[in-house]
Amino acid sequence: MDHKRRFARIRHALAVNKLDALVVTHLPNVRYLSGFTGSSAVIVISESENTLFTDGRYTVQARQEVKAARVLISKNPLIKAAELLTRELHNRKVVIGVESEHMTLGVRDSLVSVLPKRVRLKNTQGIVEWERMVKDADEIRAIRDAVLGGARLFDVALKTVRAGVLETVVAAKMEHAARIGGAEGMSFETIIASGKRSALPHGRASRQPIPSQGFVVCDFGVILAGYCSDMTRTLYMGRVNGAARRFYEAVRQAQLAAIAAVVPDVPVGEVDRAARLVLKKAGLGQYFTHSTGHGVGLEIHEAPRVAAGQSELLRPGMVITIEPGAYIPNKWGVRIEDMVVVTDTGCEVLTPTSKELIAV
Amino acid sequence: MDHKRRFARIRHALAVNKLDALVVTHLPNVRYLSGFTGSSAVIVISESENTLFTDGRYTVQARQEVKAARVLISKNPLIKAAELLTRELHNRKVVIGVESEHMTLGVRDSLVSVLPKRVRLKNTQGIVEWERMVKDADEIRAIRDAVLGGARLFDVALKTVRAGVLETVVAAKMEHAARIGGAEGMSFETIIASGKRSALPHGRASRQPIPSQGFVVCDFGVILAGYCSDMTRTLYMGRVNGAARRFYEAVRQAQLAAIAAVVPDVPVGEVDRAARLVLKKAGLGQYFTHSTGHGVGLEIHEAPRVAAGQSELLRPGMVITIEPGAYIPNKWGVRIEDMVVVTDTGCEVLTPTSKELIAV
Repeated sequence: MDHKRRFARIRHALAVNKLDALVVTHLPNVRYLSGFTGSSAVIVISESENTLFTDGRYTVQARQEVKAARVLISKNPLIKAAELLTRELHNRKVVIGVESEHMTLGVRDSLVSVLPKRVRLKNTQGIVEWERMVKDADEIRAIRDAVLGGARLFDVALKTVRAGVLETVVAAKMEHAARIGGAEGMSFETIIASGKRSALPHGRASRQPIPSQGFVVCDFGVILAGYCSDMTRTLYMGRVNGAARRFYEAVRQAQLAAIAAVVPDVPVGEVDRAARLVLKKAGLGQYFTHSTGHGVGLEIHEAPRVAAGQSELLRPGMVITIEPGAYIPNKWGVRIEDMVVVTDTGCEVLTPTSKELIAV
Repeated sequence: MDHKRRFARIRHALAVNKLDALVVTHLPNVRYLSGFTGSSAVIVISESENTLFTDGRYTVQARQEVKAARVLISKNPLIKAAELLTRELHNRKVVIGVESEHMTLGVRDSLVSVLPKRVRLKNTQGIVEWERMVKDADEIRAIRDAVLGGARLFDVALKTVRAGVLETVVAAKMEHAARIGGAEGMSFETIIASGKRSALPHGRASRQPIPSQGFVVCDFGVILAGYCSDMTRTLYMGRVNGAARRFYEAVRQAQLAAIAAVVPDVPVGEVDRAARLVLKKAGLGQYFTHSTGHGVGLEIHEAPRVAAGQSELLRPGMVITIEPGAYIPNKWGVRIEDMVVVTDTGCEVLTPTSKELIAV
């Protein structure tokens, strides 16, 4: 990962945002910029220098992982960072950016208590997240690995989903396979939602036995080398009747239409609209109750939100999910989700798994 | 769980803290007060009323789970809460408490943007957390279940830990058993740290094979019905020599001394001191590099911190970990951890597992 380049881009953003320095406290942003994977760190980017502050537990690890910033160890990394800023920016009125979407009021208070009055803290939004939206080649490689590792779990689901088996048992087998396959963990709580529960968009695996008839929504992902995967497939238990097939097919066509709409320079809202239009035509518009997708990377939910009215433009290198669904309360639900990477001309679907309806 | 009583206690705290209302946004605090387990909610406690705001995904669930507060559904629960406050506290200068250790600057900004000028937001610390420190009978029952469920995983570890087996494979088997046993998840990333890695206090299971000689630190816990468990046992691979036995025994004696020091009205710092003293006498003082323990409940790390110099007094109903350790870099480490509940006269050890050194 080219951390030097990432720091340079943030330094450029300092000027644009009229900041003398930026304090980065959100750990995924810390990891993105520096490669540091510990659980306690603050990065300060000033006009001249990049510094990562962490505590004594991470002395060895930080020196191994961090190449593009100097590393300073302290019992209280945040206070140490404030002291450094005070020293470096001496005798000047300065403006220091903080990450307002992540920093708590309490942390800001402790910063203010040690900074001299001439230093002003300024709330910033998404400076590092903006950079993270477009993935570089190293990241796309890592995401590809995570997506393939995640997709293998669907084979486990296929082997385990049977009438009478608890949803949690299916999740347990998949999570076990993920661990054995080298995943650091799941990227979110595994969703196995069967029968009427398939109508719950966030139906985490419950201790309900899978019924002999109806849909089973399987939504899951792994974290591999820090990067997340996210996919959904919906199975059918028993003989598929016409109504179930039509319902599934409407969602599948919506998903394909949304993928076809992923083209550089198109607002993400258009992708959402493409999926929504297909479901509306199928009479299911009101049952598509969430947005079409989201960015994925070091975090499972990143910018951009692929939702109605969002004006963010698609750019090559963005990695997003495409996951329309339809849910009829107390009856059934279907969701189909792939991860795609935006290319120069359209997009490449990263998830390798078939989307044909599988009956168990 | 007696949510009515919990709300009443917070209402009492409003007066003490000179607040007209408190806005609770930290989800474990929301769950503690109301029983609501969804992922999006704001609670407003004013002089006359308790209100929980959540979004449309949780309409049914909130009405099922929440009995001691009225439930209002909104696309933007936070803004809705601000509107309600504005209406209820009309024509008055009011002070509203926010949770400064949890609320981000960005969330505060959105609150301020919709509140009239006469409303002042005041940073508060740990109002709900103070109540959560002492567990009631229902909570202790839930914690007991989680501790027993967690302890069963140690049997899985005992069966799986063998020379040559990857640390992650041991973790995978334990996590699988946890799921099958009904756990919602692990309460933190499973630590399996073998050989030289046992000297890492936070040695998450890695893809290193377990060596044929040396300690294996196993630190793990489950979440059951929302409550966390946390325990550590250290095994030995191969024939235990005198040095290893003495090292282990020093940590065990430190752990027993700390447990013996858990008595109501004693400052938690004394518990830490008791453990530290034993290790110091054994010549290992400098290798005990973390604190002795922490509270556990809806979160894996809660107040009080059982650390040097902490003056919080032990009270009956507090649930804390007792987990001294000693770590000699690049050589080996041992940690032994139980969960205990403070009683009227001392404490009860909840973790049922033997602490004799087991050689595999």
